[in-house]
Amino acid sequence: MADGPDRTYPHLHLRLTFANGGWIGPGKADLLEGIAETGSISGASRRMGMSYKRAWGLAEALNAMFQTPLVTASRGGPAHGGAELTEAGRAVLAHYRALQARACEAGAADMEALAALARGSDMAGRK
Amino acid sequence: MADGPDRTYPHLHLRLTFANGGWIGPGKADLLEGIAETGSISGASRRMGMSYKRAWGLAEALNAMFQTPLVTASRGGPAHGGAELTEAGRAVLAHYRALQARACEAGAADMEALAALARGSDMAGRK
Repeated sequence: MADGPDRTYPHLHLRLTFANGGWIGPGKADLLEGIAETGSISGASRRMGMSYKRAWGLAEALNAMFQTPLVTASRGGPAHGGAELTEAGRAVLAHYRALQARACEAGAADMEALAALARGSDMAGRK
Repeated sequence: MADGPDRTYPHLHLRLTFANGGWIGPGKADLLEGIAETGSISGASRRMGMSYKRAWGLAEALNAMFQTPLVTASRGGPAHGGAELTEAGRAVLAHYRALQARACEAGAADMEALAALARGSDMAGRK
């Protein structure tokens, strides 16, 4: 998870904004990943330390932002129903992760140079 | 300027966080660029549509984050004194811009794929 306790530094945070005003960043990507791995929005939200309401809102925002929904969910009473990614949801997650990996790889030398100039860099963990 | 009216889409926003808790993103990079190009924090802040106080605070945060100051400034009365980038300031700006350019180049195909899935992509301007 991008924001988990295992984060290493320097840490690159990527947000991609579309012409329609919507955007995807690490939180929405982590939500998609959490839904894929836990099979529910509630499971994903617990893993992210986020309220179910907020996670549901993010999933709705993602669905509205793309031409086809990314998440299909059955909203179910106290237990909350299951959820899964659609084909578009899997594609969006995969492209975001690939963007992240390629950006980190291409920018590695510049990120290291910036981290070396930062205060305390002699004590810093490196990605 | 990353956040100007000429922004094209999809737009990639990069924030790099260091182990010391500090971070640099497009706002701070634009501030450094504005100081280099206008010769003052007030000039940079005007260009960014940001208050002088906020710009001064960002410059101070940048100076505290790195081993040597990035910006030297003489704070002067109503007219506000001049400011310039140090060698470290020019290096940080150059590495951030290079990181941005390399990330955009390496991630171009994934960004295009994501933009093509987004709602309204048939009307979107492309970078």
